[in-house]
Amino acid sequence: MARVAVIGAGPSGLSVLRAFKSVKDKGSDIPEIVCFEKQDTWGGLWNYTWRTGFDEYGEPVHGSMYRHLWSNGPKECLEFADYSFEEHFGKPIPSYPPREILADYICGRVEESGVRNWVRFRQTARWIEYHPEQEAFTVVVHDLINNCQVSEKFDYVIIATGHFSIPNAPLFDGLDKFAGRVLHAHDFRDVLEFKNKEILIVGSSYSAEDIGSQCWKYGAKSITACYRTDPMNFNWPDHWETRPLLTKAEGKTVYFKDGTFKDVDTIILCTGYLHHFPFMQDDLRLVTTNRLWTPGLYQGVALEANPRVMYLGMQDQFYTFTMFDAQAWWARDVILQRIKLPSPADMEKHSAKWQARESTLKTNEDMIWFQGDYVNELISQTDYPTLNTEAINRTFMQWEHHKHQDIMGFRDHSYRSVITGNQSPLNHTPWIEAMDDSMDTFLNAHRITLKKSD
Amino acid sequence: MARVAVIGAGPSGLSVLRAFKSVKDKGSDIPEIVCFEKQDTWGGLWNYTWRTGFDEYGEPVHGSMYRHLWSNGPKECLEFADYSFEEHFGKPIPSYPPREILADYICGRVEESGVRNWVRFRQTARWIEYHPEQEAFTVVVHDLINNCQVSEKFDYVIIATGHFSIPNAPLFDGLDKFAGRVLHAHDFRDVLEFKNKEILIVGSSYSAEDIGSQCWKYGAKSITACYRTDPMNFNWPDHWETRPLLTKAEGKTVYFKDGTFKDVDTIILCTGYLHHFPFMQDDLRLVTTNRLWTPGLYQGVALEANPRVMYLGMQDQFYTFTMFDAQAWWARDVILQRIKLPSPADMEKHSAKWQARESTLKTNEDMIWFQGDYVNELISQTDYPTLNTEAINRTFMQWEHHKHQDIMGFRDHSYRSVITGNQSPLNHTPWIEAMDDSMDTFLNAHRITLKKSD
Repeated sequence: MARVAVIGAGPSGLSVLRAFKSVKDKGSDIPEIVCFEKQDTWGGLWNYTWRTGFDEYGEPVHGSMYRHLWSNGPKECLEFADYSFEEHFGKPIPSYPPREILADYICGRVEESGVRNWVRFRQTARWIEYHPEQEAFTVVVHDLINNCQVSEKFDYVIIATGHFSIPNAPLFDGLDKFAGRVLHAHDFRDVLEFKNKEILIVGSSYSAEDIGSQCWKYGAKSITACYRTDPMNFNWPDHWETRPLLTKAEGKTVYFKDGTFKDVDTIILCTGYLHHFPFMQDDLRLVTTNRLWTPGLYQGVALEANPRVMYLGMQDQFYTFTMFDAQAWWARDVILQRIKLPSPADMEKHSAKWQARESTLKTNEDMIWFQGDYVNELISQTDYPTLNTEAINRTFMQWEHHKHQDIMGFRDHSYRSVITGNQSPLNHTPWIEAMDDSMDTFLNAHRITLKKSD
Repeated sequence: MARVAVIGAGPSGLSVLRAFKSVKDKGSDIPEIVCFEKQDTWGGLWNYTWRTGFDEYGEPVHGSMYRHLWSNGPKECLEFADYSFEEHFGKPIPSYPPREILADYICGRVEESGVRNWVRFRQTARWIEYHPEQEAFTVVVHDLINNCQVSEKFDYVIIATGHFSIPNAPLFDGLDKFAGRVLHAHDFRDVLEFKNKEILIVGSSYSAEDIGSQCWKYGAKSITACYRTDPMNFNWPDHWETRPLLTKAEGKTVYFKDGTFKDVDTIILCTGYLHHFPFMQDDLRLVTTNRLWTPGLYQGVALEANPRVMYLGMQDQFYTFTMFDAQAWWARDVILQRIKLPSPADMEKHSAKWQARESTLKTNEDMIWFQGDYVNELISQTDYPTLNTEAINRTFMQWEHHKHQDIMGFRDHSYRSVITGNQSPLNHTPWIEAMDDSMDTFLNAHRITLKKSD
């Protein structure tokens, strides 16, 4: 029997487990699946920890999750085609759930399919190398609980370790003597620490937008957001200002490219993450920046240099859970030899075509359509339920529109599920006033509001 | 020609370079030495970086160094037998130097011997395995600048990566919802961040003592230090109190074992470090806690299971630079086959003897004599200059005494160098008032004071 190693039991890894379980349930033989997960539970970045830097075993903390995080996109854009939110929670729920709800949802699907014993928790990948003569991999993992290494042979390796774990933190002059706290978004945890503080946010992507909003919501004294190329183009509230890029810090004073300066207490580097696979032998290692089409991956998944290695979820993401599903079903069918890979030259040609299209993309809308088409191309090759990506893309457009209308209020909208066809209810409280993000309150306070508005 | 890989160019790694250079200068043939250093310069933990968690290449930040750190022990207890402070700085300097001085001193010695080209900077160890049939190691390192791996064969491997890099951070109930900052000492950087803050220090060893003192010196509102087993036994100043161990946190309130509680802004876990060698194949990997006699290392250096692997500086440390020298000279002479290793059984027997003595140690004084004897045993086997450990031990005793007299004032004392025989001058300013820790001020302001008191 073939053996498949899956590294990571976060959203992408769980999609792999689900994909194999679903074909097994239909009566097919499947290879042995061994999923190695560093954390003590599955769910990947959707778990919250107070820890920063290293975990209790000295391993890099995987998560960049912060307390009080709410989804920054509509759940209707990431709903599994084979497992709706309504099926999981037993009722419709609002469109922008807090962290706990999303963690519960993605874990619930696999909990239900009974694949937990495919996962070895608290085992982290140390070294993966390929032996061409055996067409097999040696996978060395560290069993953290027993503090020993385990080395096993596998026929396929699926890397599902995510790319929001290792910070990209550029140097700015004087950061070594800044008289306050400097942190990367990866280490942002409890916003209450930043109450009444003057905050400088460096960056203009999702982390900058959401961590800035979070600090603002919880009472930071001011937010100053600075950008390298383009500012975040939203109507920011009072006590929020935008400046060009930080040039240097001196004491508590930060200077900007336009010559202005300001005193701040905290600098939060929302400057993105690195794709980092220190446990992969060099010729198995994906080297890419964060982009919609990852070079060297056939169908965005199989390593062209050695397609027995597959990478899931390594793209810049509008689509998330459903894209991971589409990739997992596709990877599964390659391993089951239901999908035949073309020649190396044809794989390259195929990738080049997508890469050429990627280079023409200008707006977020272009990118969303691009990624929707990619997801569709994958789904069309497997038995994953058809997904109405056109409807999902339109929901993304609404989301973008709502953000531009009111960046602090966009989460108060609701959208229609393309899976169930049902419109979601509104949340119990406007997001800006909702300080309690517990699952219990989200699910139950909501019901009360609905009754009132009935 | 044999090849020796040295992992790390911090204090221990530099001792290895110096040891081989010294015997080469005397006309001996030496093996090829390749030292792999993750950072962009040598000096290890004596370098300061503003970064926490991960460096610009996504690698774990090595250092736990904080701004404004001054040596917490007399420099007379760590002075190299073959390179005095006076030789390096051209004049006597005070006994408790700030970070930059110590960095300059340890790097200066190797700079002078011209071994810089033995070091490959920005290369970090990824995977080291042994091939018994070849009596050789494969060492895979990642070249961070070129983002590629390099794999080479070596006959010996010396691990000199230190053990103050990977935090040991125990969980306390409620830390996941503490409404302030929680950090490990490893992430402590600029004390100015903690001005006017109420600080809780967890722990009772050197980090607790020194980070607490640092915060107090730079204007923290209060220091509360809590302990698991024994409190730090010093005469603390006002606004410093001691409590038994933290039991839980709720909001900003922390509770202690005696039922008392208190509101604090920041929790600093001064709870030690892990010995962590993720790049070592399991049977080459040292497994130990922080203790004076590391199990499994013959003479505290050679891995009994495979003495071609040596670990330097892995002990709990009173002696530092000179102990690393003693170990490096010894490791060198084993590699040069000037020292013959006994049989495995005799190695074990020898280690057992030291371990038995270790188990009888009760006081810091006992431990200092133990480590002095250990250093002597090593030195007696090589051509490293004789070290008067008895005199050094007595300086350690004075240091302990001065700390108990005045924990905020012990750095204002001076001691006599056992290398030069000269008494060190006093520092320009009492430590508690010395806010400028630059090398320039330390070396030059001191001269002015001396003139005045002449």
